Amino acid sequence: MRIVEISHDECTHLLNRVSIGRLASSLDNQPYVVPVCFAYEPNYLYVFSTVGKKIESMRQNPKVCMQVDDIASPSNWMSVVVEGNYRELQEAQYSAEKERAKERLSRSSEWWVAPLAQRREHTSDILIEPVFFRIDIQSMSGLRGIPEAE
Amino acid sequence: MRIVEISHDECTHLLNRVSIGRLASSLDNQPYVVPVCFAYEPNYLYVFSTVGKKIESMRQNPKVCMQVDDIASPSNWMSVVVEGNYRELQEAQYSAEKERAKERLSRSSEWWVAPLAQRREHTSDILIEPVFFRIDIQSMSGLRGIPEAE
Repeated sequence: MRIVEISHDECTHLLNRVSIGRLASSLDNQPYVVPVCFAYEPNYLYVFSTVGKKIESMRQNPKVCMQVDDIASPSNWMSVVVEGNYRELQEAQYSAEKERAKERLSRSSEWWVAPLAQRREHTSDILIEPVFFRIDIQSMSGLRGIPEAE
Repeated sequence: MRIVEISHDECTHLLNRVSIGRLASSLDNQPYVVPVCFAYEPNYLYVFSTVGKKIESMRQNPKVCMQVDDIASPSNWMSVVVEGNYRELQEAQYSAEKERAKERLSRSSEWWVAPLAQRREHTSDILIEPVFFRIDIQSMSGLRGIPEAE
């Protein structure tokens, strides 16, 4: 396998094509990472999520990292890493962005957005309380693994 | 979608079944997350990796988080989060662990281990220098998303 850097355009192409990423936050230098559904716009990633440990962490330390990949095999893959800052979006001020992000997310994952964004319920175990936030992108880079035969 | 906590046994079952995880490290409270191939043993996760930003980060701050999932659809998934400490394994002292981990990893991903662990080469862009390390597991938890219809 060879590993090569990919261009900014190839990074954004992957971010437009894939809708599930892994979001890392950090509190007192203890990192924490969970899968989230996101929508990419130039300079921003939009995310709907449930309240929980990661939201509490990002409210205290807004530095985050989103990793997005497409792994065909362990020797044939692309991975993009985005570093940025968490910004929670309040209802009134960001309603236009929220609608646009919901629309973007719903294209690829309608059943994901629905339970998180449109309902507030207590299931048997976990409180599902939706939070809408944005990651202001500070840097972006990507790698590609290529099988030797290519 | 309902979200429920899964048991420790269900967590370890997923860690045994899946060999690609997302590993988060943190330096100066800036998290960083990348995909890695791992092998689970009780109390430990074993990882072969290339030298780079994450290794430099973990050498300075050993607190890490590994996230492993199986996502059938956005409303039908399992995700396990492991928090632990990075320990780099030197050749002589840990040769038995290294051989066992290589054997475990090779079952599910032979072409992944080979280029990372057995070669040291400079490709056109990225230096592939293998590092073998262990994550000493401090805590483990998991969630499952279940479609409403179930």
